Amino acid sequence: MTRHFNFCAGPAALPTAVLERARDEMLDYRGHGLSVMEMSHRSAEYVAIAEKAEADLRELLAIPANYRVLFTQGGATQQFAAVPYNLLGNGGTANFVDTGIWSRKAIAESHHLFGDARVAASSEASGNTRVPQQGEIELSHDAAYLHVTANETIGGLAFDYTPRAVRPDGGEVPLVCDMSSSILSGPLDVSRYGVIYAGAQKNIGPAGLVVVIVRDDLLERARPDMPTLFGYKTLAEGGSMVNTPATYSWYLAGLVFEWLRHDIGGLPAMEAINARKAAKLYAAIDDSELYSNPIAPANRSRMNVPFVLADERLDRPFLAEAEQAGLLNLKGHRSVGGMRASLYNAVPEAAVDALIDFMADFENRKG
Amino acid sequence: MTRHFNFCAGPAALPTAVLERARDEMLDYRGHGLSVMEMSHRSAEYVAIAEKAEADLRELLAIPANYRVLFTQGGATQQFAAVPYNLLGNGGTANFVDTGIWSRKAIAESHHLFGDARVAASSEASGNTRVPQQGEIELSHDAAYLHVTANETIGGLAFDYTPRAVRPDGGEVPLVCDMSSSILSGPLDVSRYGVIYAGAQKNIGPAGLVVVIVRDDLLERARPDMPTLFGYKTLAEGGSMVNTPATYSWYLAGLVFEWLRHDIGGLPAMEAINARKAAKLYAAIDDSELYSNPIAPANRSRMNVPFVLADERLDRPFLAEAEQAGLLNLKGHRSVGGMRASLYNAVPEAAVDALIDFMADFENRKG
Repeated sequence: MTRHFNFCAGPAALPTAVLERARDEMLDYRGHGLSVMEMSHRSAEYVAIAEKAEADLRELLAIPANYRVLFTQGGATQQFAAVPYNLLGNGGTANFVDTGIWSRKAIAESHHLFGDARVAASSEASGNTRVPQQGEIELSHDAAYLHVTANETIGGLAFDYTPRAVRPDGGEVPLVCDMSSSILSGPLDVSRYGVIYAGAQKNIGPAGLVVVIVRDDLLERARPDMPTLFGYKTLAEGGSMVNTPATYSWYLAGLVFEWLRHDIGGLPAMEAINARKAAKLYAAIDDSELYSNPIAPANRSRMNVPFVLADERLDRPFLAEAEQAGLLNLKGHRSVGGMRASLYNAVPEAAVDALIDFMADFENRKG
Repeated sequence: MTRHFNFCAGPAALPTAVLERARDEMLDYRGHGLSVMEMSHRSAEYVAIAEKAEADLRELLAIPANYRVLFTQGGATQQFAAVPYNLLGNGGTANFVDTGIWSRKAIAESHHLFGDARVAASSEASGNTRVPQQGEIELSHDAAYLHVTANETIGGLAFDYTPRAVRPDGGEVPLVCDMSSSILSGPLDVSRYGVIYAGAQKNIGPAGLVVVIVRDDLLERARPDMPTLFGYKTLAEGGSMVNTPATYSWYLAGLVFEWLRHDIGGLPAMEAINARKAAKLYAAIDDSELYSNPIAPANRSRMNVPFVLADERLDRPFLAEAEQAGLLNLKGHRSVGGMRASLYNAVPEAAVDALIDFMADFENRKG
């Protein structure tokens, strides 16, 4: 058995310790005589697994008591629809900060379902190289909420501050955040947000699970014409078991939360590791003649590091040799090309060191 | 490690051989150096896994070429909404045969979203002990389709024929079938159906995956106001990868399909085993003084066998002693009480034999 270094943007690397535990528990979960996959979601054993996962997530993110945690399905993409269904019941318009491809998908789905979708600020004029500043965000008078994408997985562009969502009349509205590719990368002040959602397949667990953290006063704003399973209130009241949840993915998420708490030592420790990993890779890129990254330093993502080679004819040999060296999934997203190294929590610092060494060696030989 | 006999109604038992393979491949999928969970859904390795799963399912069910197979999320419950969104775009009313709790959930969601939901026939007058016959099904003049639940998981009531969906004017409309708890239990004539859908967590794989089989001419009937991810046409055109699918669940479904093909020998062989398992358990129930099942013999489910004890004060000791004997999850659904033994594909005949022996012994001692 060999484990290569995996820089995939998602579904992404999982901690080896988590996979080992899942492997060891696959046929018989701790003496219960069956796999977690085979458990009734209503059974005492499974409910204990589910509740521990939520408790560990609450502990990691210091989630206040007036927030509900939902474990649901359909990925962040389904939340692009669920958010407006849940928050536009009292009227008003969804407002967005557009920072790249994922923001635009959220905007498009809201527009498709409910027409008006206001872009309150955009990074487009900068070529998506910097995030709009607070003063550039102009909400509409009827803004029901402001949606932001904390970290653009494809562009490698990240917010370096938590925006305030203030209408022209001075009234504050909920901040909604797609945190799919940055949640759990460091501590977070949840109380600044109305809704946080995150597809699991980057820092949480396997694809097919999405975690939603919602302030409980926002459970009362839903449109009545919503598919039942989209309803935050319904899910909250049903303990995310309105129908059969993605039980095995939820269990794996719990193993990841345990790993973060006990193996890593919590989110401040995780953040320090992530800062170090990203800093050394960006430094290697900036110091080279061959590689470059265009993002404003303050908005560079710690999770997704896109870079291009000065001569794109070198892309293919770069990728082929990287794979030979056990450095997997460095190809940039098909919409932008180039390279991308995703440095999620489960990507060890040794992987980043190996990548930097490989990049330097490649540049020496080919650059 | 011990593997008990698991009669859970879902999430249900999986074949031990499948779990062993998943365990062995957990950290390094066949020398690729990463887990299937960690693969990009766009990677060549993962696309091969996904395509092989679909090909094996097509082979098992002899799915005609003009049907599309979708792997999506949210369980059958999400399909209760997705079906009317996809099929009511040209107007008309959804028609249903009501055979129990799961039918009623489908009816309720269609009614919630789109008002009219016509019950074309119901088993309610019989106490849900027999399925309406063809002559009892009365579609509305404007029926857009007829929805049936092939097997009521809670009630243990199953169709013994495939209904035709004919309007009063003689025009035939698509038959839509929730096959969550009976798909793959035996061969099937897919061409009789417009849409078949099935939550995975009984005979397919882990919870959090749903398989939809849809005739391709029905892709053009969708309402425009549908959440994007609900769209059968969108999913079909995107190869079920419009967003990140539940990759690991899809892989496990593929292992189950392989097991059915190669270990069991296909669906005729599977059906013979299932018929034998169910026949001997119903015979044991019918021959006893203590146990009973009220369903009309022709409509008895082979997958879910509910039964009650003549004295319900024996329920608790029955369940406690069964669990002691390694016979798990025999408690009936909370809405109906009593017992239920689910005999899905992965429940071996030895489990049924052990259950029958236990039931006889319990009756001898307590009955």
